[in-house]
Amino acid sequence: MSTMPVLALHGGAGTIRRDLMTAERKAAYHAGLRAALEAGHAILRDGGTALDAVTATVMALEDDPLFNAGRGAVYTSDGTHEMDAAIMSGTDRACGAVAGICGPRHPVLAARAVMETTGHVLLTGEGARRFCREAGLEHADPSWFATPERRASLEAEMARRASGIPDDGDDARRHGTVGAVALDIHGHLAAATSTGGMTAKKPGRVGDSPIFGAGTWADDRTCAISATGHGEIFIRHAVAHEIDARMRLAGQSLATAAHDVVAEIAPFGGSGGLVAIDAKGNVALPFNCSGMYRAWTGPDGRIHTAIYSDED
Amino acid sequence: MSTMPVLALHGGAGTIRRDLMTAERKAAYHAGLRAALEAGHAILRDGGTALDAVTATVMALEDDPLFNAGRGAVYTSDGTHEMDAAIMSGTDRACGAVAGICGPRHPVLAARAVMETTGHVLLTGEGARRFCREAGLEHADPSWFATPERRASLEAEMARRASGIPDDGDDARRHGTVGAVALDIHGHLAAATSTGGMTAKKPGRVGDSPIFGAGTWADDRTCAISATGHGEIFIRHAVAHEIDARMRLAGQSLATAAHDVVAEIAPFGGSGGLVAIDAKGNVALPFNCSGMYRAWTGPDGRIHTAIYSDED
Repeated sequence: MSTMPVLALHGGAGTIRRDLMTAERKAAYHAGLRAALEAGHAILRDGGTALDAVTATVMALEDDPLFNAGRGAVYTSDGTHEMDAAIMSGTDRACGAVAGICGPRHPVLAARAVMETTGHVLLTGEGARRFCREAGLEHADPSWFATPERRASLEAEMARRASGIPDDGDDARRHGTVGAVALDIHGHLAAATSTGGMTAKKPGRVGDSPIFGAGTWADDRTCAISATGHGEIFIRHAVAHEIDARMRLAGQSLATAAHDVVAEIAPFGGSGGLVAIDAKGNVALPFNCSGMYRAWTGPDGRIHTAIYSDED
Repeated sequence: MSTMPVLALHGGAGTIRRDLMTAERKAAYHAGLRAALEAGHAILRDGGTALDAVTATVMALEDDPLFNAGRGAVYTSDGTHEMDAAIMSGTDRACGAVAGICGPRHPVLAARAVMETTGHVLLTGEGARRFCREAGLEHADPSWFATPERRASLEAEMARRASGIPDDGDDARRHGTVGAVALDIHGHLAAATSTGGMTAKKPGRVGDSPIFGAGTWADDRTCAISATGHGEIFIRHAVAHEIDARMRLAGQSLATAAHDVVAEIAPFGGSGGLVAIDAKGNVALPFNCSGMYRAWTGPDGRIHTAIYSDED
């Protein structure tokens, strides 16, 4: 079997305020999204696996300080970084994830090492950090992950909490995430997600990214999904597995299942979105807020990038 | 609405070897299962909530050193305890979980505190331990959790690994868990799960217990589920949410969905089982191994306890 390869990625979703978005900043986002998509798409074009493509795409997003994963990760309320990442293969639903780590330059490689070298699925905290050191992953200094923008966000959020000023509703600052889904020419799907979590989160808090069935899922029978948004609500609705289940058990299309689920969680405070690809290469990029940083390959193989809902 | 209350619990599943089960030990298990069920059932009979009933039942199992949760939890490869617990309300799918804690006498109360006092769903490791201290939960000395039987299991497992002797197949020693599901007279469902994990697990390893949709789920529209078994496989198959989805999307009965899913994961190495109750009070207790420590109330309100498959 030889399938047209397809790749989609997100760099977070939320109320992305247009008044804070300069032309220069917007151009930088589009360039970062395109570069990350190209990193993965080059692998797919050369006959590489979906698993390698989502890994490469997420690595690129982790290295880009514009996005909340790896370099540019947000800070906890303690002023530290705690990163989560997950990866899943649609071939056999093999999967691996880490939560609460700070050390590996590319948290997605830590997730992949869990999948490929342990009998476990999820490693957290100090045990995960020790595993990463022993696995020989490239580590980076804390200064690599630190950015003045995220530090300012933490300080603003802590000041807001201290003074009791209501939230300004810029969700994207609170819960960005990056992720990718791919279909390779062999017909296999994969998904990967990586995040620094929420600005000023309680240390130890884990969102939906490393929770399979919530923020990440891949199954060759149905689809690959990577979500971004208010993680707790995504967990309570098992968002990724719910889409898989509606396709498999109710015969729904990817578009219907993905759009419906993302719409249904909005009234529960589940702001966010997701990127999804089905086994036939259809792409769905639903979100229920004003924007989602995203990029995807169209049926013509061309790369598209977008931020707001009026840009598709 | 006033519904006949129903409660079911498990204390772990696996290849429970009859040759190691003395009459005295068997009687102690049955007594422990019955006492835990009575603790929760008394709450339901008095008009209490399913949430309070599963909490009380799991607390009793956590206090009983026969079961792998709280007192009697297994050891990690470091010789420490790392406990996970989760609780979920079927009313609104509110949920809370902790992973990798050692401190609170009753990990299920830590999970409940996450659900009721934070905006988060899952707290892990040092952050979770700090939260437990600040939440004012009753803490116990490490010696409270320690039992000579679990220490001997760790030593046997480490010796087995060092010498390369094949595993003897007694899964119950490796991955016990406790859990409960309940339907209260108000028609609400709840589920709770608590575990010490796997003997000699890698520090930081998290199984399916605190992963909503895998080891724990509750939704008044369908069912409440608490699972026990090879957690990694349960995560890869989203076992609890899959049963919910088959009932909701494919119109299956609880019995059909629960038995099918438990049977389907067996070939993937997913040994284990689960306890489940649907919104009408039907109980399903499927397992794909030789035994599951379990107790439940029948349609007559009487308490039943069982270990092997030939005891229902």
